[in-house]
Amino acid sequence: MDIATLIGIAGAFLLIIISIVIGGSPGAFINVPSLLITVGGGIAAGMAGFPLGEFINGFKAILKAINPGMPNPIETIDFLTDVAKKARKEGILALESDIDTFYGKDSFFGDVMRMLIDGLEIEEIKSTAESSMAQIEQKLSTEVAVWEALGDLFPAFGMIGTLIGLIQMLQNLSDPSALGPGMAVAMITTLYGAILANALCIPVAKKLKYYKDLRLLYLEAYLLTAEAIEKGLNPNLLKQKLAGLLGVEIKEG
Amino acid sequence: MDIATLIGIAGAFLLIIISIVIGGSPGAFINVPSLLITVGGGIAAGMAGFPLGEFINGFKAILKAINPGMPNPIETIDFLTDVAKKARKEGILALESDIDTFYGKDSFFGDVMRMLIDGLEIEEIKSTAESSMAQIEQKLSTEVAVWEALGDLFPAFGMIGTLIGLIQMLQNLSDPSALGPGMAVAMITTLYGAILANALCIPVAKKLKYYKDLRLLYLEAYLLTAEAIEKGLNPNLLKQKLAGLLGVEIKEG
Amino acid sequence: MDIATLIGIAGAFLLIIISIVIGGSPGAFINVPSLLITVGGGIAAGMAGFPLGEFINGFKAILKAINPGMPNPIETIDFLTDVAKKARKEGILALESDIDTFYGKDSFFGDVMRMLIDGLEIEEIKSTAESSMAQIEQKLSTEVAVWEALGDLFPAFGMIGTLIGLIQMLQNLSDPSALGPGMAVAMITTLYGAILANALCIPVAKKLKYYKDLRLLYLEAYLLTAEAIEKGLNPNLLKQKLAGLLGVEIKEG
Amino acid sequence: MDIATLIGIAGAFLLIIISIVIGGSPGAFINVPSLLITVGGGIAAGMAGFPLGEFINGFKAILKAINPGMPNPIETIDFLTDVAKKARKEGILALESDIDTFYGKDSFFGDVMRMLIDGLEIEEIKSTAESSMAQIEQKLSTEVAVWEALGDLFPAFGMIGTLIGLIQMLQNLSDPSALGPGMAVAMITTLYGAILANALCIPVAKKLKYYKDLRLLYLEAYLLTAEAIEKGLNPNLLKQKLAGLLGVEIKEG
Amino acid sequence: MDIATLIGIAGAFLLIIISIVIGGSPGAFINVPSLLITVGGGIAAGMAGFPLGEFINGFKAILKAINPGMPNPIETIDFLTDVAKKARKEGILALESDIDTFYGKDSFFGDVMRMLIDGLEIEEIKSTAESSMAQIEQKLSTEVAVWEALGDLFPAFGMIGTLIGLIQMLQNLSDPSALGPGMAVAMITTLYGAILANALCIPVAKKLKYYKDLRLLYLEAYLLTAEAIEKGLNPNLLKQKLAGLLGVEIKEG
Repeated sequence: MDIATLIGIAGAFLLIIISIVIGGSPGAFINVPSLLITVGGGIAAGMAGFPLGEFINGFKAILKAINPGMPNPIETIDFLTDVAKKARKEGILALESDIDTFYGKDSFFGDVMRMLIDGLEIEEIKSTAESSMAQIEQKLSTEVAVWEALGDLFPAFGMIGTLIGLIQMLQNLSDPSALGPGMAVAMITTLYGAILANALCIPVAKKLKYYKDLRLLYLEAYLLTAEAIEKGLNPNLLKQKLAGLLGVEIKEG
Repeated sequence: MDIATLIGIAGAFLLIIISIVIGGSPGAFINVPSLLITVGGGIAAGMAGFPLGEFINGFKAILKAINPGMPNPIETIDFLTDVAKKARKEGILALESDIDTFYGKDSFFGDVMRMLIDGLEIEEIKSTAESSMAQIEQKLSTEVAVWEALGDLFPAFGMIGTLIGLIQMLQNLSDPSALGPGMAVAMITTLYGAILANALCIPVAKKLKYYKDLRLLYLEAYLLTAEAIEKGLNPNLLKQKLAGLLGVEIKEG
Repeated sequence: MDIATLIGIAGAFLLIIISIVIGGSPGAFINVPSLLITVGGGIAAGMAGFPLGEFINGFKAILKAINPGMPNPIETIDFLTDVAKKARKEGILALESDIDTFYGKDSFFGDVMRMLIDGLEIEEIKSTAESSMAQIEQKLSTEVAVWEALGDLFPAFGMIGTLIGLIQMLQNLSDPSALGPGMAVAMITTLYGAILANALCIPVAKKLKYYKDLRLLYLEAYLLTAEAIEKGLNPNLLKQKLAGLLGVEIKEG
Repeated sequence: MDIATLIGIAGAFLLIIISIVIGGSPGAFINVPSLLITVGGGIAAGMAGFPLGEFINGFKAILKAINPGMPNPIETIDFLTDVAKKARKEGILALESDIDTFYGKDSFFGDVMRMLIDGLEIEEIKSTAESSMAQIEQKLSTEVAVWEALGDLFPAFGMIGTLIGLIQMLQNLSDPSALGPGMAVAMITTLYGAILANALCIPVAKKLKYYKDLRLLYLEAYLLTAEAIEKGLNPNLLKQKLAGLLGVEIKEG
Repeated sequence: MDIATLIGIAGAFLLIIISIVIGGSPGAFINVPSLLITVGGGIAAGMAGFPLGEFINGFKAILKAINPGMPNPIETIDFLTDVAKKARKEGILALESDIDTFYGKDSFFGDVMRMLIDGLEIEEIKSTAESSMAQIEQKLSTEVAVWEALGDLFPAFGMIGTLIGLIQMLQNLSDPSALGPGMAVAMITTLYGAILANALCIPVAKKLKYYKDLRLLYLEAYLLTAEAIEKGLNPNLLKQKLAGLLGVEIKEG
């Protein structure tokens, strides 16, 4: 559970609402047609920029910004070191019995260990694994890109809504007293766009990018482990390398 | 058929139209001279930035954003694996009879297999193929660039139109009642520019970029297959590699 | 002759002029002091950012956007293939008599062939040629950069002119009837800046960048040819490589 | 102590305050709700974009912009050269007694020397050290990114606050005399956002980036020293290399 | 002496002054508090983003934009070729007597030749030289960065000044006749920021970047010469390489 995503987004919206309520007449800030053009237009144009499946996938990735499901680095290092120790003591083939655990940890790790146990050459394994990593990066980058696109499009459609409102208002200037409220309504779409972009889309895109980079670091750690096992590297040295890679301080001993 | 492009762009335009109709006087939003300066100016300046053939080509690439004609990844993997199996069983020369199928799949794949069957060295094939890939990437990138340029130029010419309208209005302030409608007309070009950029050009550019990257992935898959055949790689291993490259989960068996 | 540059720029200016004439009082759009501050200021600041020779060179490169003088790709491929054929049949030294033709084609090609005939090692030739290519790229990039800089500076000086005009107008608000025309004059510099940037500088910069990339592709083709001759590569294979590099479909036979 | 950070930020705020006081009625520039939406909203949205620990860490890194705690380059060069001299004279194992000094200098240097003394191969040491460097860079880059994000978000929430204020003002235009003060209040959030971004966040982000690059240079210097010791490089040559790397002029002697 | 920097910057300022004088009441454009907040604030915030020494150094680098002190390329090529000729005829040790000339030419060249004469291996020399080059690039890049930062900060503080002025004006709307002049004064800081950025900082940053790239090219030429001497390369070939690198046409003979 990523508590910062929840607190941050909820906090930003709360502060905006408080700010509106303090100023009075909060009802004036709710406007369904304005919501339609800003949110609807932004989502429609966003969807047009991605294949449908990728867009829906990216849209749903907001759940990952809240609950990223990333493994604990220290537990992962211990786990991988144990795998390397077992392989060193009992041979690579002894890992056959743990293959389901590996797939349970991460299907990428399962694939890599599967190839290792099947006796493929390490160069072959690395080349296949790097193709997979490139694909996973591509997939996660698209999720980030969906939220970045929405972060650009909501303000853009907010501005389109405001332009439409202003043009309509300017063509009916007969009643000067309607000028103010007319402009107020026109500006609501710009406000919606700015709020959605800055309090939702940009933070979500940043958080997804953070976890994308972290996920790729774990994939590197898995591949490093497979390489270390194949080369018969000292498990303690592997532990040190993994700690360096994942940025964790480990106690010697 | 890329349904998201159609739904997205149509949906965005529909929402804009609904939003205009709700506000009343939709006729005021249709203005031929405004369309002329925004669309015409944007297209003219866009054309000046590319050679004529490339610009027309890029412009027509909007059809690819709707109907990309990309092969199915699973079918492609099966097809390529079958080619590798046949080459392994019957020898590379046996592929001679399938060369037209290869060209039908993708002319790049045809060229690569032609060279393979002709007995060229794999390094030579790769070097020639990479030149072709660079050229194809260049061509597809230009298509993306045309729509990106239009996405910048339509709002720019929208702003130019608004400036012209404002200057004309400001020089004839004798009749204050004409002020509002005058500004309304001036702002229509900015609205046109914003709509064209955000509801059309930017999504199309994004979609074309997506398919460009996908196309290059397929080219890599074709080259990988040729390399695997030349090296006599196990077709099952090739299948796994292709699946990793194209991001497809395949069932073992 | 690049017809798109001429049609595009002329078309964009024509549409702007039509749009002004339709709105009436076109004379109000011609203002010499406004032209002075926008064009003069932009050019002065642009000049300060480059050495004098490079700036003048870059400025004159607009002629290349109109008349790029690029060789025909198919003719070039045939020409280079013929050179390779002759070298294969009669030996490299036989090319001595064609050296002037090579220099006539492209002085870079002349230099490369000169070194080849003089018997320099291919690694030496490539290293020298790559230094030259880097220099040519640098020179062409500066031409692009001059127009990109002007495309940023014209709108900036347009805004400076508008600010000056607005400040002058605001300080003399005694006559309200002068407000409108005053603002109109102030806004003309912004309009000039926007037109010059979007209808001239940005398209020219894009076109020059396009031809820069194309020129570098030709240089690569020349170097590839020299390498092929040195290695005694089959001229038909060279032809195929050049076609891939330059993105040309060639008929076998 | 980085005196420029303190003088610069304090100076910028002082000039802004002076500028406000000169214009009169400074009290009007203090507005608690405006502060709440701009600062609170910016921090909340910023927090949502990073994991909680990284955000707090990055936020606290402002102290590093004031007190970076960077070692003196000349002392460091002398220190590292002395280590290399000792290793050359007495052997690598003699450095065992100094290992705590190494960890005191920099824990990265300690780790590298630990591995060197333990007799690991230099390739292994370099690979482990480079993983650590990548992690340290990642961590420091996140600190920079936090301040860059705040530098974007404070103006964004300033604009959101202004939009809210304008909409509230426009809906209550019955009393024209309230128009001016209403707009004034609405604009205060934009002012807060601009001040926080330009006088605080952007300079802090730049300073942190500067020290990040410097820190990485020191890490390279430590690794270079370990490599030089392992290879038995002449300590004077090492000194020269370190001086070049850290950009210090050293006297021969 | 770089005449373009002087003419360009002086010309841009002159055109702005002429434009102000033509419009009348030039005195209204001089406002000391506005200068204080724009220039003072920008410099203070700029200083906070760099270590003090680097900021002052970068600030003073404007002199290099006027008087870059770059060597003449043709003379440099002749000089370096002569050095190579002497080394070829009389041996590398014969260059010992010219070492002061080398340091006089460029201290980097002196260092490189010192190492060459001392008999260091070329790989060692190159590695040390590349560290130095990275440091020199870093130093020159910081100079560019200072002016780029000022080019961003002057308009930002200009906007801050305008916001302060507008808020003060809006809170005292009792006297409508003060509205215009009030806004005029508020806008002067934006004008100052725009002028300083576009007529001074941006051109200076561009010019410094140009000379940074040129300086690095010369460093490469010096290193290339040392390498050529070590390898005993034909001085005429070196000359050709240097000409290619520095983009100079040389006459054969």
